[in-house]
Amino acid sequence: MSPGTKIGKLVVVGVGLIGGSFALALKEAKAVGSVVGVGRGDANLRRAVELGVIDAIGAFDRATLGDADLVMVATPVGQTGAVLRALAPLLGRSTVLTDGGSTKQDVVAAARRELGAALPRFVPGHPVAGTEKSGAQAAFAALYRGRRVVLTPLAETDTRALDLVRDAWRRCGAEVLELDPARHDAILAAVSHLPHVLAYALVHQIAGDGDAAQLFGLAAGGFRDFTRIASSSPEMWRDICLANRDALLAQLDRYTGELAGVRAMLERSDARALESLFARSRDARERWLKAEPGGK
Amino acid sequence: MSPGTKIGKLVVVGVGLIGGSFALALKEAKAVGSVVGVGRGDANLRRAVELGVIDAIGAFDRATLGDADLVMVATPVGQTGAVLRALAPLLGRSTVLTDGGSTKQDVVAAARRELGAALPRFVPGHPVAGTEKSGAQAAFAALYRGRRVVLTPLAETDTRALDLVRDAWRRCGAEVLELDPARHDAILAAVSHLPHVLAYALVHQIAGDGDAAQLFGLAAGGFRDFTRIASSSPEMWRDICLANRDALLAQLDRYTGELAGVRAMLERSDARALESLFARSRDARERWLKAEPGGK
Repeated sequence: MSPGTKIGKLVVVGVGLIGGSFALALKEAKAVGSVVGVGRGDANLRRAVELGVIDAIGAFDRATLGDADLVMVATPVGQTGAVLRALAPLLGRSTVLTDGGSTKQDVVAAARRELGAALPRFVPGHPVAGTEKSGAQAAFAALYRGRRVVLTPLAETDTRALDLVRDAWRRCGAEVLELDPARHDAILAAVSHLPHVLAYALVHQIAGDGDAAQLFGLAAGGFRDFTRIASSSPEMWRDICLANRDALLAQLDRYTGELAGVRAMLERSDARALESLFARSRDARERWLKAEPGGK
Repeated sequence: MSPGTKIGKLVVVGVGLIGGSFALALKEAKAVGSVVGVGRGDANLRRAVELGVIDAIGAFDRATLGDADLVMVATPVGQTGAVLRALAPLLGRSTVLTDGGSTKQDVVAAARRELGAALPRFVPGHPVAGTEKSGAQAAFAALYRGRRVVLTPLAETDTRALDLVRDAWRRCGAEVLELDPARHDAILAAVSHLPHVLAYALVHQIAGDGDAAQLFGLAAGGFRDFTRIASSSPEMWRDICLANRDALLAQLDRYTGELAGVRAMLERSDARALESLFARSRDARERWLKAEPGGK
């Protein structure tokens, strides 16, 4: 897709924050003709039409999918296999397929299992952006501006399909990079999946305290920001954790080791070691904030 | 201090985010005559004058402290003992003393050790508010608006001193409550000190990875907010962790137990248990956001 060319018809399967924002961004960039939404929640799809996120409601049928130029699968990753299975026989001969799932090895495995002849036109992707909000009403056109999108193409992937998906993301304002699926999953386990688990676990601990109301009453801005991601969709994060279980377990074990280290410093009241660890963390974070487009 | 009455002279020892914002808030409320700053950093104090946070620079001497109506000690908690020792012989007979330290048992112990006859005029306090920024330039008048301030008065504390400090905080826009120092410390270990340690530990883990640059490159908004408190002052948090060591160790051990629970769910791919834990956390957090003045 060269600048100015359009995706004639985009089908978004799962019109939530990720799929809906993809549609809105492409509309804002005038890079798409029409957008049809497909999903299991009728109320959500109707709201998506009202909000202008999609133009029409479609279904898993030839009428919706047979003439689609691009299909974006943006359902919770646990559903990807079933969705690809349903889509495979309905896609047109030149329909390109992509997804927005937070894990990639499981998606690639599902695609190999389900897509058959359509496999070369599937471009696995992950926009590294989001908020803790869910549903079509959470979507906004600027979500991907200045953010990174990882594509994990297969050896079989068509160049044309890869180009179309890469260019679509660029039109959304994103920076696109390519990674091996396993490497993608290992990195995201560390910088995204682990923090989500940690935030959920902390809120669970506070909520389970006999004096939870008093504890929450003295929680301030630090707690609010630390736990923001614990307001994320439980279903979505259940799926991500299970899909990326091994990499997440490895990171969780490393983290338990980090905590054991801090515990030992505390136990022996080692002021110097604690300050040094805190300072290295602060400095690393400040360098990241300065360097990263999405850091600030 | 009834509405309209003023603190004639306020001395702030440690003109950073907490002490500086206290001064600015009282100035904005027209609840203070003059503010004198005392501290070890000359450049910081000069900046505080330039920024109008304080009116003049003082020192640990009778001229500065002998006629002060209120002295706010807002240094890192590790310095509280030495600061109180230095202040005790210099305070006027009716000077009221308070502090803004994040831990209270250690401050109360230091006050009992150091203050002698001035003890009844000391009102230990903790404004439950802050940002990850440090220094006079981080101070702002609205920091305490709608926030909670915990006072932990002693059996010996003068009613007049308690009233003055409570009213000063109310003039800053804060809601004031009273707690036993040990209870305060146990609560804050859970909702503040533990999350700080967890955030520092996560950044430490990422920064220590051989591919740290690539990991940081795919860190997004969730990571940024989760780790915001890891940009806090290492010196300040070293002191807080050591001052509240036992309560923090207890919370850290509970958290390690929480993580072991999540790990077991992951290990056995228990989708239902993971989703249930995540959902309970999200629901508890959402209830808190709705209920709390400082939640939103």
